[in-house]
Amino acid sequence: MKYGYTGKILRVDLTNEKISVEEQNDIFYRRYVGGEGIVAYYLLKELRAGVDPLSPENKLIFAAGPLTGVAIPGAGRNSVGAKSPLTGGFGEAEVGGHWGAELKHAGFDAIVIDGKAKEPVYLWIHDDEVKLMNASHLWGKVTGEVQEILHKELNDKLIRIAQIGPGGENLVKYACVINDLRNAAGRSGMGAVMGSKNLKAIAVRGHNKSEVHNKEKLREMTKLFNENYFKRLYDSFEFGTGGDYMEYSSSTGNLPTRNFRDGEFVNVKALEPRTIKETIGLEKDSCYACPVRCKKVIKIGDPWNVDASYGGPEYETLGALGSNCGIDNVEAVCKANELCNMYSLDTISTGVSIGFAMECYERGILTDKDTNGMKLNFGNAEAMVQTVELIGKREGIGNLLAEGVKRISEKLGKETENFAIHVKGMEIPMHEPRLKQGLGVGYAISPIGADHMANMHDDSISHTKVMIYHGALGILEPVPMNDIGPQKIRALVYYMNWRNLFNSLLMCYFISWRYNDIANIVNAVTGWGTSMWELMKVGERVTTMGRVFNIREGLTFKDDWLPQRFFQPPTSGALSQTALDEGELKNALQLYYGMMGWNEEGVPTNVKLEELEIGWAVNL
Amino acid sequence: MKYGYTGKILRVDLTNEKISVEEQNDIFYRRYVGGEGIVAYYLLKELRAGVDPLSPENKLIFAAGPLTGVAIPGAGRNSVGAKSPLTGGFGEAEVGGHWGAELKHAGFDAIVIDGKAKEPVYLWIHDDEVKLMNASHLWGKVTGEVQEILHKELNDKLIRIAQIGPGGENLVKYACVINDLRNAAGRSGMGAVMGSKNLKAIAVRGHNKSEVHNKEKLREMTKLFNENYFKRLYDSFEFGTGGDYMEYSSSTGNLPTRNFRDGEFVNVKALEPRTIKETIGLEKDSCYACPVRCKKVIKIGDPWNVDASYGGPEYETLGALGSNCGIDNVEAVCKANELCNMYSLDTISTGVSIGFAMECYERGILTDKDTNGMKLNFGNAEAMVQTVELIGKREGIGNLLAEGVKRISEKLGKETENFAIHVKGMEIPMHEPRLKQGLGVGYAISPIGADHMANMHDDSISHTKVMIYHGALGILEPVPMNDIGPQKIRALVYYMNWRNLFNSLLMCYFISWRYNDIANIVNAVTGWGTSMWELMKVGERVTTMGRVFNIREGLTFKDDWLPQRFFQPPTSGALSQTALDEGELKNALQLYYGMMGWNEEGVPTNVKLEELEIGWAVNL
Repeated sequence: MKYGYTGKILRVDLTNEKISVEEQNDIFYRRYVGGEGIVAYYLLKELRAGVDPLSPENKLIFAAGPLTGVAIPGAGRNSVGAKSPLTGGFGEAEVGGHWGAELKHAGFDAIVIDGKAKEPVYLWIHDDEVKLMNASHLWGKVTGEVQEILHKELNDKLIRIAQIGPGGENLVKYACVINDLRNAAGRSGMGAVMGSKNLKAIAVRGHNKSEVHNKEKLREMTKLFNENYFKRLYDSFEFGTGGDYMEYSSSTGNLPTRNFRDGEFVNVKALEPRTIKETIGLEKDSCYACPVRCKKVIKIGDPWNVDASYGGPEYETLGALGSNCGIDNVEAVCKANELCNMYSLDTISTGVSIGFAMECYERGILTDKDTNGMKLNFGNAEAMVQTVELIGKREGIGNLLAEGVKRISEKLGKETENFAIHVKGMEIPMHEPRLKQGLGVGYAISPIGADHMANMHDDSISHTKVMIYHGALGILEPVPMNDIGPQKIRALVYYMNWRNLFNSLLMCYFISWRYNDIANIVNAVTGWGTSMWELMKVGERVTTMGRVFNIREGLTFKDDWLPQRFFQPPTSGALSQTALDEGELKNALQLYYGMMGWNEEGVPTNVKLEELEIGWAVNL
Repeated sequence: MKYGYTGKILRVDLTNEKISVEEQNDIFYRRYVGGEGIVAYYLLKELRAGVDPLSPENKLIFAAGPLTGVAIPGAGRNSVGAKSPLTGGFGEAEVGGHWGAELKHAGFDAIVIDGKAKEPVYLWIHDDEVKLMNASHLWGKVTGEVQEILHKELNDKLIRIAQIGPGGENLVKYACVINDLRNAAGRSGMGAVMGSKNLKAIAVRGHNKSEVHNKEKLREMTKLFNENYFKRLYDSFEFGTGGDYMEYSSSTGNLPTRNFRDGEFVNVKALEPRTIKETIGLEKDSCYACPVRCKKVIKIGDPWNVDASYGGPEYETLGALGSNCGIDNVEAVCKANELCNMYSLDTISTGVSIGFAMECYERGILTDKDTNGMKLNFGNAEAMVQTVELIGKREGIGNLLAEGVKRISEKLGKETENFAIHVKGMEIPMHEPRLKQGLGVGYAISPIGADHMANMHDDSISHTKVMIYHGALGILEPVPMNDIGPQKIRALVYYMNWRNLFNSLLMCYFISWRYNDIANIVNAVTGWGTSMWELMKVGERVTTMGRVFNIREGLTFKDDWLPQRFFQPPTSGALSQTALDEGELKNALQLYYGMMGWNEEGVPTNVKLEELEIGWAVNL
């Protein structure tokens, strides 16, 4: 009995319509754990170097972790991975909701998908019954329609669906995979890979929970959560993510505004989740087994008509489609969010691509001819919403914007490079690297491109109580936000590894579990008797595997860099005198490489791979 | 309040007869922890490179840890450190008994001793009253006499004494420091450093326990110990260390025999602790607060007359002064053990020096002229015992042997080099590196020279249940004894760091605490909320600091090597076809360097020092 796991990995060969089950041994599970670790394992082991991410040869992996589907707060997540069409490197995203739990309950730890279906199909997993089903009638439909049809067709409203909308079908480079209509495996363009395989959806219904080793201990941990963490956490999410933070974020210079050009967004109050609650009204929703309820649900009538089933905008979305496009019309942002979830578009990349286009438009690099007459100025809410839909449909200007900032910039010319806000082709999320400078280094270095999911927030180690909160990670002294010297980079290294562990265990980062709690939870679930040492080494292993993958695909240390814009201050706000320094960033990257056991060109040494027990990845 | 610490470090300047108290902050204690960590800190920070180890400039440090003196099994230890006169590098040894606990109870975490007293002195610590006292009347006396006099003179039989006998006074290079007559801080020649400072003893009496953060949790841990570990452990030490193991050790080729020349000791049964119990009789003793009672107490009448107050021979002593000298007369070994404790000589280095001399004598390199007519053959028990005393007194052949194997060999000529059994000048302990090959690499690499205290035992990871016992350390798969490839070296790296943590916390390795227990105990005592990750990083920090110290003193990767003898098989026994391979050892060392973040010449990189938060040690 593999506690915490089903022990079964589903293999689906779409080209040959073959379905099989693979079993891995205990060591495999303990070494790679789940989620991002399993994704990294299969991509490195089985993918030929240099495959076109949108070709049948790419593999698309859905992976749960030992905690997915376990009845404990934060454990409702799964991971989706493939070679990224956006970056050409390691692609992976995590997502909450209920789908991952359902997959585990159906009896699978992961699904590895090969090839390409001749016609659109969906995968139907009903406990151990697994079938490929014709999806011609679903193709072209938005996610909500698909869910309605499948619930009816399979006659069960509790079926959970991971799927793509037309954005994925149309191979929008940053298309995402949507779970339960309102949860996105957002980054890296996993939805485009799914679309390239003619796979519209994976519908799952499961009835068996995987065995937990020590239920008593797990209850104890839930009690600890309820008594010590819950109230503060629940209250902090009174308005969902970004609640009461937007104004502060803008005042500190953290909130990306008008394509990261301006340092503050004067009308930010309009975007505050508190304002949303007071003006539009706000319900909340949760992931599997989680009492925190951090997810907004919003319903808006005429003229925007936002359907509540698609949820509401997260902080990242409020930033990307709001302030970053200069937009203070929160209803429009909610509509754009709904459209992203209908079409399966990553809201961050969508918003940053539109913000970039807006700047190009204002500079006259894009013209009315390109936009078919649409005034694509910063702050034009109607144009923003319309553009989202055009991207999903790849129509008009949307066809260009669907390529992502890097390719748009290549198309529009070198003059746009300085303000093309991406790393390795992935658009930068909604925390300002000129403020949180360690996070900025994290953007530059992360295997998937500018990433907020396995990164640090400098503010969390800048306060005097850092030893109480982060001592267990070995961080004993506060480090200022704008410091990217050895102490900060050391913290970044440890944090990123820890977060990549989270993305493998599949635990939500919002839950306030302390470091040792996680080891206790993993032990309660798996019976491993693991420690934070072993878990940190898993995180380091996973980070390193992503790096090795990228190197095999031809990415180099030169791709670890930030857009030129960040070496100048923003036009206004708290950071109007603050910019990154190229020499400091270079130095910080060298520190990161060295601390990770990578050589000066950022290549993990063979001996480091041996130490991490991935010696098999030497000379892959 | 520093839970687990007194917060006070005693500074004693012998030259100027100045005594003061130093206070360090919380971060210092958490980063360097205690024991070996504190030793490494002061040696690196305050010692000028290149000082003569026996000059007043050397510093002698006695350090307790957070666990020393806490009422939990295994926490009765302290550490003694200085630049080693034996190796010229990092010197450090740990010791059990009661002295360390008494030091903590008197109110001090450590003592840092500088300079040299004009006349022999002893240090008298009576809670916060600290005095240097004249010791002219003690000089030249053996440890037992000193203890008797001081107990009388200070009028308290509960005073605990760390001291040197005439061996230390006479600067025997491997003189040790003796606690409570029968516990030795054995390795590295710390007793010679003490002698060079004219410091005869440190007498301590304390009445205040340092505060424990969570007494309830500590009781829980004791309960865990009593219910789960105690019985098996107590039984396994029925005859003390080496109990029922000697014969097995010989049969596997593990027991060093006749200067590591022969692979088995045919008469080994005579040395079995079980035999001792059956023939001589055997009492047992314990360290502070420990119920395990692993320490032998032996009383023998005519003709050997062994005084019970000096304890009985440990496994290492039975090997070094027994089989390694070809001696099967266990009473003689007990006598030699008593003499070592009276004169403060390390039994391992003493035995290996004598064994080496015996081989030289049998080869005719040493002659009756050198030995003053004594027949120094293997197996001559009387000669062995007599030689121990000569070493302590530095008389006759003893004066040469007091220099240790490396210097004896240099004196006797190059032909002896191949069988001079030392690393960096420190004699090799009683586990055979041709059998336990990972341990052999550990001998070669350890900062203090051939070391058994911060090393691994290959057998513990060669069995199929390795994941259950060592999974928390990240060791999931068994590795054979004779393998020194990447998997073994990875385990060695982790083990040595873990053990150096033990030598800093000051926890006994014999106690069967599981990995996570240690984090739990440390948290109960200190309230830190630490994790096994942070603790392992402390261990890595301490290992690295020892290495940095050695490099500053001019030691290089060339000093990381084993004696030539081990590249040939022993003459007989289970290993008669087995030898180490030079190429494999070189490769293993490169793996070790790489996995530790050291360069190809074994020098810790600057970035590694920064990662370990000892950036201050760059370019010291």
